Amino acid sequence: MSNQELEELRSKLDEINLKLLELLNERAEIAQLIGHLKTKQGMVKFDPVREREMLNELVKHNRGPFDDNTVRHLFKQIFKASLELQEENKNKQLLV
Amino acid sequence: MSNQELEELRSKLDEINLKLLELLNERAEIAQLIGHLKTKQGMVKFDPVREREMLNELVKHNRGPFDDNTVRHLFKQIFKASLELQEENKNKQLLV
Repeated sequence: MSNQELEELRSKLDEINLKLLELLNERAEIAQLIGHLKTKQGMVKFDPVREREMLNELVKHNRGPFDDNTVRHLFKQIFKASLELQEENKNKQLLV
Repeated sequence: MSNQELEELRSKLDEINLKLLELLNERAEIAQLIGHLKTKQGMVKFDPVREREMLNELVKHNRGPFDDNTVRHLFKQIFKASLELQEENKNKQLLV
């Protein structure tokens, strides 16, 4: 009985994992487009002010159970991965 | 013109950020429920086999632009935060 409950919760987690993956990649695509635009305009990629604004907005909307510090930590990792993706693309362009 | 394009892309990112936040907290709630069940059944919280299975499933569905290592890294952070949340709740229960 309880094992069935556990299995049901786990399959919900699996569903959410895939939704998260999809959203993360969708986000990464948009970050890439922003990177291309910034390259064209000669703008720097890393914008600490914009990043802080995004984090503040996220914390403002955070209703838990993750606390604000965890939300900040997880999104900083996401921002960092997106920035690395933009840099990789820039390096690829330099190699062409 | 291009600044408008940048603003549009940024507002899409903001939307996705909030959706990610919502899904992350939804995921955290389910992880908490799993934690409670495991406590009741005297099971250990950290399950490396289950974690590896989830990561494999995510990598199998990854269509990029994030590469598989980045997907693994980001989800490991999410799993870790969820586990910490389960441990915090356990400590709170011990204090009551």
